[in-house]
Order: sequence, then structure tokens, then C-alpha cells
Amino acid sequence: MKLRLAPKETKFFEMFAQMCSNLQDGARELQALLRDMKDIQGGVQRIKEIEHRGDDMTHDIITRLNQTFITPFDREDIHKLASSIDDVLDYINAACDRILMYRITKVEPAAGELAGIIARQSDALAIAVKLLGQEKNVIDYCVEINRLENEADVVARKAIGELFDRERDPIALIKHKELYEVLENATDKAEDAANVVESVVVKGA
Amino acid sequence: MKLRLAPKETKFFEMFAQMCSNLQDGARELQALLRDMKDIQGGVQRIKEIEHRGDDMTHDIITRLNQTFITPFDREDIHKLASSIDDVLDYINAACDRILMYRITKVEPAAGELAGIIARQSDALAIAVKLLGQEKNVIDYCVEINRLENEADVVARKAIGELFDRERDPIALIKHKELYEVLENATDKAEDAANVVESVVVKGA
Amino acid sequence: MKLRLAPKETKFFEMFAQMCSNLQDGARELQALLRDMKDIQGGVQRIKEIEHRGDDMTHDIITRLNQTFITPFDREDIHKLASSIDDVLDYINAACDRILMYRITKVEPAAGELAGIIARQSDALAIAVKLLGQEKNVIDYCVEINRLENEADVVARKAIGELFDRERDPIALIKHKELYEVLENATDKAEDAANVVESVVVKGA
Repeated sequence: MKLRLAPKETKFFEMFAQMCSNLQDGARELQALLRDMKDIQGGVQRIKEIEHRGDDMTHDIITRLNQTFITPFDREDIHKLASSIDDVLDYINAACDRILMYRITKVEPAAGELAGIIARQSDALAIAVKLLGQEKNVIDYCVEINRLENEADVVARKAIGELFDRERDPIALIKHKELYEVLENATDKAEDAANVVESVVVKGA
Repeated sequence: MKLRLAPKETKFFEMFAQMCSNLQDGARELQALLRDMKDIQGGVQRIKEIEHRGDDMTHDIITRLNQTFITPFDREDIHKLASSIDDVLDYINAACDRILMYRITKVEPAAGELAGIIARQSDALAIAVKLLGQEKNVIDYCVEINRLENEADVVARKAIGELFDRERDPIALIKHKELYEVLENATDKAEDAANVVESVVVKGA
Repeated sequence: MKLRLAPKETKFFEMFAQMCSNLQDGARELQALLRDMKDIQGGVQRIKEIEHRGDDMTHDIITRLNQTFITPFDREDIHKLASSIDDVLDYINAACDRILMYRITKVEPAAGELAGIIARQSDALAIAVKLLGQEKNVIDYCVEINRLENEADVVARKAIGELFDRERDPIALIKHKELYEVLENATDKAEDAANVVESVVVKGA
């Protein structure tokens, strides 16, 4: 793939790299939070700040997109990629909202495992987006993000199945079921982002 | 922004104005219904009729779009704007379905508050769409719609948190939690509509 | 509508016909499964295989799309149609996941009824897609798919309403409510597919 970027157009790659780096921060914070549930207040606070920064970055990239005539790849794909990365962070933030709203103070290891998968997807996405700007093969990382989504599916289904087997308090069941679903949704959105990256590569091939 | 409309193209603006006006009717009806839950039968009936009219309007605008070569703004944006306005009304209607299906006869003030936010978003959207046709600045109204969505988020999260603190009957909890979520979804869709309007303005700037 | 297809472009119609045929298989299997819940293991296994095949077909059509310059109808519509058909099958598969995860061994007749509606939508969609390639009027089938979605809405709302009236075990209620919702979501996605087909016809008229 040869993108032949004019200097100004490289700005989009820089902006996506920043978005991915911010997403990685958010995923790491969530993983740390769900690992031990020790500093809930602080962890949630830091994720909220990261999510706000992500919102600003998404807004900036879409504003620039709307004002730019020539883009390094399809406008539609730039829009979709930015939205998907933003969605992953939204679900990371949504997991925090559930913890606060439902006053969750303890979680099963599966919750931390799911956060770990989101973190690994974010790492792979960061590399894929970086390589995209440097015209190298990125498909391997997209495949890996898809594989991780399948892994998250299995982990979430198993965790929810066990929850229904074990938990006799329906209100506690509702809370933890929803936390798993929100985490699993985050991995779906990372897959969406990977699919956009893959289609950009295929189109440019 | 200069749109330089041919006479025929102004039709889209008229159609969007109609859609917004219909949405305002629906939002007001919902607000009145949730305020006192007195005339449930009548209120739901009126909202169902408004929702049907909205469906027809959406269908008309998309049919016209598919048959029109030159449009006053991006085809994709016309499609998205019509769909988002339709979605808000769908969620207003979905709130009514929950009331009927779950035989809800009493709601907390937060439900009426959320309906009030939807109504204010609909008002702002109606103005934004009107100004769009008249080539005036509409961003302020879009920003307001986004602010209202954030306000709805806070109201819904607080209401659901209190529900989990207070409600010991899990089945009642499920019913009211879902009503709040449906109302909050309506405000998300209004935000989607505002984002389309904003992007139309930015592109035309 | 005159599509004037070059030989190679007819490939997309063949691929869509295959996707629809695979979807029909999945819908029939689900209907058989929910009718008597006798061979759960075997039925779920067969649906999972069909869903995997569907994933491959979707991937192939999108890869081909990204590598093809001239398409028989709008690229965006090809993408949306493939995604919607894939989504119907995803929800059929999601219904199986709920059955396994929640250890559901008995369902109400309404569940089988919903699967029957999905099967009839799949049949209509298969015909609509076939006629699309042969340049004949397909709108009737699209209208029928929309009508079936409304029918599914009514069936699902009634079934969920009765569930809340009857079921005193909140955990059983959560399980069956979600199964109905997943089935109803499948019919929404079939409607999405029909709407794409309809818009292709209208644009080409």
C-alpha cells in the first residue's frame, strides 16, 4: 500500500496514535481497578479524566475531517475508526459507572480477565494504527484483535453462566451480569476499529 | 455557510421541520404522561399515533432522498439526520411500551425529568434544523442538545443508583431500570441528530 | 431498474444468494430447536456451524467489495446488506448462547413463534435478493419483511408482558425476557436488510 502522504495529511495518523495511546491508558487503569478493587475512587476518577480527553480527541479529529478536502484514507473510514476507538473508551467508562451506581466493591477474576483482554486489544490497535501510517502490513494485528474478541466472548459467557448457576440474589446477579456485558461490549468495539483498519489496508492494496 | 438552494431542494428543510415538530409533540405527550400517570391509556394512544406519523415522514424523506440527484447537503447526512430524529421518537414510543408491558402505574419524578430533557432537546433540535435552512449559526443549539444529554446521563445514573439502593423487589427494579434506560437512550439519539447538524454546518463553513 | 451487469459483477448476487440460503438454514434450525427443545446439544451445534459459515461469507463479500472498482449497486449498500444478513444470523446464534448459558430447557410457544417469523423473513429476503439480480420488482417482499417485524414486535411484547404477569422467580424471568429480546432483535436486523434492498431498488428506478 502506498499512501503518498502530503505533510499535512500525516496529522490524522498522529491524532489516531494519540487516541490509541489514551485508550491504552484507560484500559490499563480499568485492569488495575478490577484486579483488586482497592482504590475504586481514584481509579474511577482517573478513567473519567481519560475518557474526557478521549472525547476531546474524537471531536478534534472529526472537526478536522470535516474541514479537510484530501484525506490519507476514506473519510468514512476515518470517521468510523475515530468513533470505534471512542466507543471502546466509552464502555470502559460505562464499566466504572456500573461500579459506582451499583456500589460494586468486589468482582470475580473474570472481570479483571476481560479488562486484560481490552488492554491487549488496545495495544494491538495502537501498533496497527502506527503501522498503517508507515505503510506496513497491519493485518496480523487486526486478526489478533478479532481473536481476542472471541476470547472475551468465551470468558464473558462462562462468567455469566457461572453467575446464574451460583448467585441466588437476583439484584446482585443483575449488577454483575451487566458489568460483564459492558466489558464484553468494549471488546466488540475494539473489533470494529480493527475491521476499519483492515478494510483501509485491503482498499489500498 | 452558503447553501444556495434551488427551490425544489428546500423541500428537505420543510420535511425536517415537520419531523421535528412531530417529535416535539411526542416529547410533550410523554412528559405530560410521566408527570402524573393519570391518563395512561390516552397518553400512550396519542404517542403511538405520533410515532406512526413519524414513521411515515421518515419513509417519505428517505424515498425522496433516493430519488433526488442534488441535495442541499450530503445525502449520507440527510439519511442520518432523518434516522436519528426517528430513533428519538422510537424510544419515546418504547417508553410507552414498557409502561403497558410492565403495567407501570407510578413512576419516580426522575422519569418525568428525563422526559422534560427530551422535550427541551426536541425544541433545540427544531430551532437548529430551522436555522440550518436559513444559513445561520446553529452550533449553539447543537451544543445545548449535547449538554442536555449529559444532564440526562447524570439524572438516569442517579435514579438507577437510588433504585438499587431502595427497591427490594427485583422484578419492580427490572421494570423501572429499563424505563430509565429507554428514556436515556432517547436523549442519546437526540445527541446523534445534533452531531449530524453540527457536521453539516462545519462542512459547509 | 436496469443494472446492466458485467459478468464479474453478478458474483455479488451469487454471494448474497448464498448468504440468504445459509440464513434460511439457520432460521429453520432455530425454529426446530425452539419447537420442542428436544435435541438442544445437536441443534445448537448445527447453528454454530451455520453461523461460522455465515461469518466466512460476510468476510468474503466485504473483501471482494474492497477490491472491486465497479459494483452492481452502491458499495455502501452492499456493505450494509451483508452486515444486516450477518447480524440476523448473529442473533440466531445469540439465542443459542442464551439457551446454553442460562441452561434453558423449556420455552413458551411464543419463542418458537418468533423463530418462525425469522424463518419467514429469511425466505422473503432470499426471494427479494434473487429478484434484485434479475431486475424485477422486489418491493413486495421488503414490505412483507417489514410487516413480519411488526408481527414479531407484537408477539414479543405480549410474551414479555405475560412473563411479568406470571413468573415470580426473577432469575427465570431475566433469562426468558432476554431470549425474547434476542429473537426480536433478529427480526429487526432482517428489516434492516429489507430496507437496504428497498433503497437499492428506489435508487435504480
